[in-house]
Amino acid sequence: MRIKTHKNTTHSNLSCIYETRVRFNEVDSLGIVWHGNYLKYFEDGREAFGRKYGIAYLDIKKNGFASPIVQSTIDHKHPLKYGDVAVIETKFMNSPAAKIIFSYTIKNQEGQIVCVGQTTQVFTDSSSKLALLAPSFYIQWKAKMGLS
Amino acid sequence: MRIKTHKNTTHSNLSCIYETRVRFNEVDSLGIVWHGNYLKYFEDGREAFGRKYGIAYLDIKKNGFASPIVQSTIDHKHPLKYGDVAVIETKFMNSPAAKIIFSYTIKNQEGQIVCVGQTTQVFTDSSSKLALLAPSFYIQWKAKMGLS
Amino acid sequence: MRIKTHKNTTHSNLSCIYETRVRFNEVDSLGIVWHGNYLKYFEDGREAFGRKYGIAYLDIKKNGFASPIVQSTIDHKHPLKYGDVAVIETKFMNSPAAKIIFSYTIKNQEGQIVCVGQTTQVFTDSSSKLALLAPSFYIQWKAKMGLS
Amino acid sequence: MRIKTHKNTTHSNLSCIYETRVRFNEVDSLGIVWHGNYLKYFEDGREAFGRKYGIAYLDIKKNGFASPIVQSTIDHKHPLKYGDVAVIETKFMNSPAAKIIFSYTIKNQEGQIVCVGQTTQVFTDSSSKLALLAPSFYIQWKAKMGLS
Repeated sequence: MRIKTHKNTTHSNLSCIYETRVRFNEVDSLGIVWHGNYLKYFEDGREAFGRKYGIAYLDIKKNGFASPIVQSTIDHKHPLKYGDVAVIETKFMNSPAAKIIFSYTIKNQEGQIVCVGQTTQVFTDSSSKLALLAPSFYIQWKAKMGLS
Repeated sequence: MRIKTHKNTTHSNLSCIYETRVRFNEVDSLGIVWHGNYLKYFEDGREAFGRKYGIAYLDIKKNGFASPIVQSTIDHKHPLKYGDVAVIETKFMNSPAAKIIFSYTIKNQEGQIVCVGQTTQVFTDSSSKLALLAPSFYIQWKAKMGLS
Repeated sequence: MRIKTHKNTTHSNLSCIYETRVRFNEVDSLGIVWHGNYLKYFEDGREAFGRKYGIAYLDIKKNGFASPIVQSTIDHKHPLKYGDVAVIETKFMNSPAAKIIFSYTIKNQEGQIVCVGQTTQVFTDSSSKLALLAPSFYIQWKAKMGLS
Repeated sequence: MRIKTHKNTTHSNLSCIYETRVRFNEVDSLGIVWHGNYLKYFEDGREAFGRKYGIAYLDIKKNGFASPIVQSTIDHKHPLKYGDVAVIETKFMNSPAAKIIFSYTIKNQEGQIVCVGQTTQVFTDSSSKLALLAPSFYIQWKAKMGLS
């Protein structure tokens, strides 16, 4: 499967590193992190990014919006085991659409890439309606971050 | 993001329907199923398929192999809420590669599509080595299923 | 550790059996269900009971209340493995307090007891305030069930 | 429900503080941490204790044993919400039995007690047999810790 990036979506310079220790209960009977748990690590990375740059779940909520995930992709390169530390790099992908797109690279404590992925979020207002245009608070945030 | 299917991968006629009730603990503070939990529903669907056609986790294990997930994609169309039932359709995608590829369509109890996705698995042997060629038990299973 | 039942709490005749298949992602690296996941099975049992007798999460919500868990105990007798089916028996414990108390017995598909436990819930109103007296809808429900 | 501590079980001086940030996916539709997730925090605390004192899961495994949980109790005093940090204090309870008993106190970032609990583990050998006597590595560990 080849994944094509959104048209007009480009890498930004905004990124964040966050470390999380693999939990015993995240490892399956093969002795490796169950594949679905990587979406928890992506969320850890995304929220650490959000706290660093002022665009976390609670910031978005304060502005009257939610930002549900509409697409996720995960590519596994190498397994994590119990005892490992996941080092999550989260990068903001700049898109003209009313979307928040992040790409993720997770390495283990030895610097080996274990997985890469991407998530796309949309905006919904207080009545769960999809925002077709980027909310003004988001446009202002992007301007403040030097993203056009 | 556009996802291109693997070259030479085609839909098969093998599919399976499995129903699972949304658990209270699978719903987030927005009142909808947390996006990462859909990978649990995909696994429910994949294992129901496996029990129906003799290619479940335990069948693969009995043959000396594991089949870790190397790629997952999820596209959300509509949320599930607590009280909903997820109706998971799992389809086997026929590929000449040493891989197991499934596509999934989840509907709610009213027949509305809530999400689609795909997973790719590889084979590893008892010493966790990647099988570059399809294991013979898998080739035989495909022949028995009328897949070439 | 010995657990003493609440004073004046007695077994009722109301009970419910619910079956759930162990998920691959619920099993840990020891090859057995991770101990915390039994609280999901208790919740499955409690909600099946609630649907049967009209006292499920959504019924309580409709009456303007929530019923958060304030105490849980789990005693493990025997492990569940992947491939097993958990057969959950949920019994209503009758108490004069403003509480919902359930006891649980989980067996495997061969009838062997794998775990027993108990949960206690209180009532909170729409502003998250603890109800010191049993809500009237709950008193009426108990009367309808023949519980005094 | 009153919980009686094991006869001859006493508090030790060994304890450990560990902090973990509440994950978005750990919060339920009531906006509070789902009760079953506290067992993950207990595990975080127990493993931090184990790394500090040399009695973590991987240390026990190295000695040829596993230590499955046979009993858990949780008493909730106050909810945790998204954005909160759980401060977990784990204390070793000294017992003459072939068991590992921990008690836990979780506070929020303001020092308010949110929950207390206890877990009991037994020892099983490489063939999953219950050890009726404390393994010699565990007796030596206790001696090294000044516990009789």
